[in-house]
Amino acid sequence: MTEEALMLSLHRDATVTEHALRRYYSEADEDIAPLLQSEQYSLFAGGKRIRPALTLEFCRLFGGEEEAALPFACAVEMIHTYSLIHDDLPCMDDDDLRRGKPTNHKVYGEAVALLAGDALLTGAFEAAASNTAAGAEISAMAVAYLASCAGRSGMIGGQIMDIEGERRSLTLDELLKLHSLKTGALMNAACVLGALAAGLHLGDPRMEQVSAYAENIGLAFQIVDDILDCTGDEATLGKRVGVDAAHQKNTFLSFYSVEEAQFYAERLTRTAVNAIRGYAGSEMLCALAEWLAKRKL
Amino acid sequence: MTEEALMLSLHRDATVTEHALRRYYSEADEDIAPLLQSEQYSLFAGGKRIRPALTLEFCRLFGGEEEAALPFACAVEMIHTYSLIHDDLPCMDDDDLRRGKPTNHKVYGEAVALLAGDALLTGAFEAAASNTAAGAEISAMAVAYLASCAGRSGMIGGQIMDIEGERRSLTLDELLKLHSLKTGALMNAACVLGALAAGLHLGDPRMEQVSAYAENIGLAFQIVDDILDCTGDEATLGKRVGVDAAHQKNTFLSFYSVEEAQFYAERLTRTAVNAIRGYAGSEMLCALAEWLAKRKL
Repeated sequence: MTEEALMLSLHRDATVTEHALRRYYSEADEDIAPLLQSEQYSLFAGGKRIRPALTLEFCRLFGGEEEAALPFACAVEMIHTYSLIHDDLPCMDDDDLRRGKPTNHKVYGEAVALLAGDALLTGAFEAAASNTAAGAEISAMAVAYLASCAGRSGMIGGQIMDIEGERRSLTLDELLKLHSLKTGALMNAACVLGALAAGLHLGDPRMEQVSAYAENIGLAFQIVDDILDCTGDEATLGKRVGVDAAHQKNTFLSFYSVEEAQFYAERLTRTAVNAIRGYAGSEMLCALAEWLAKRKL
Repeated sequence: MTEEALMLSLHRDATVTEHALRRYYSEADEDIAPLLQSEQYSLFAGGKRIRPALTLEFCRLFGGEEEAALPFACAVEMIHTYSLIHDDLPCMDDDDLRRGKPTNHKVYGEAVALLAGDALLTGAFEAAASNTAAGAEISAMAVAYLASCAGRSGMIGGQIMDIEGERRSLTLDELLKLHSLKTGALMNAACVLGALAAGLHLGDPRMEQVSAYAENIGLAFQIVDDILDCTGDEATLGKRVGVDAAHQKNTFLSFYSVEEAQFYAERLTRTAVNAIRGYAGSEMLCALAEWLAKRKL
């Protein structure tokens, strides 16, 4: 698949997702207007929508209907967005720029930003549990899986390791675990929920390939993130660079040169691609994995 | 039912709930130890466990099994606890005392407290969605209902109104809506989830009585809270008093004298009791409603 075809495909998935996301905000209650504005400010801030694309594409790969995957795709994106809002708060990374715009709390204040994050997290589970196209059994399974990936044994666990790690140097094994939790777990949920929406059960042997793809692109994604924070362009990225060094964060560049890290990311990408290339219709997911490892933003 | 019998009954429900809550923390991962400690610090800080008692008692009232109600009872208590942790943060109410102990962020720092709240909220939905005793259909319905009560159209919506209200005087109608969202919605979820666990559907006519009970005790509870913040004893309450006045919060005492407010709370309590007194086995729930309106802590 050409990069042009990949971008078209990504754009189509993003459009479908954004249309579905907007529907969750169709009722306007004046009394909570600042909350709704704050949520939508971050939810529609021009994210790349990689996670919802993974959900939609894995659902298609296993012959499922888009309708059954969409609420899960939205739920994953809401959780991704909440994590960015909370992560940017002064008590966390204290970032003032995200996707080229002021961070949520810079615009709406800390209290509203905190609550907007809480509301997005809560809304994610409401969306996933109300997935009538997938049915109650798949929805309950998806909520439990998503919560487990987003919670203390997943993304939040990774954030705690990140915070605690600022006080000391992590070993490479610890750093790998941190990123597997902080980035890989939600990427994995995005892929697995797509497969669930297509009717696969968690015990299905094909799920191992889904998770192998997800975990490898998740780690490759994070390595490229570390490289870009060191070598990337602020205007292109839409966020501050050099933040990791300033916060004394543990990154892959504490262990590898930029070239070695890039090589490592490409090796992980090959492993991800090999896990799913045998399936008819996996071209977009393979191209996406390769693009993520080469991206400049 | 005597107050002694009520206290015994509440204590029994609290013990069962705490035993079930502990099981969610049985796996110890050293790498996330500060998160686990912070979550448990607030979750086991000696709360009265009124919400889980409501869930368990409504399940019993409609002939359900305790086992099916317990994960929902735990989920509601986790959400209640997360809301207290986030509410106490410096960017929100900036409280340093809760249940006679330093607030979570005073002990663990703001970043860990923020993430502990996030993890409790996430863990609540994982617990509710994994309720195998109730089954997938009831679990999916419970997650969607709980999320709707806890989210932007419920508790979080009430918190936004509370924050925005600090800048101006609310009308009595706005204050009633604020408290119906901020306190009533989660109380309502606690009661409704108990009934769901017993097999009632959301459209069941009996659910109207469940919600009538819940909404009236929720409002009465909040009125008594306002009275206690004005007249209560700091040592007995285990939290600062006079906070509402200091924060220029809108309270019922902006509209009523203490005597009128107490009378109002008792009238709501009678309405709550009348909604369910016809059911055999409703004695504990009736006694609980009456005790909540008379409580001094």
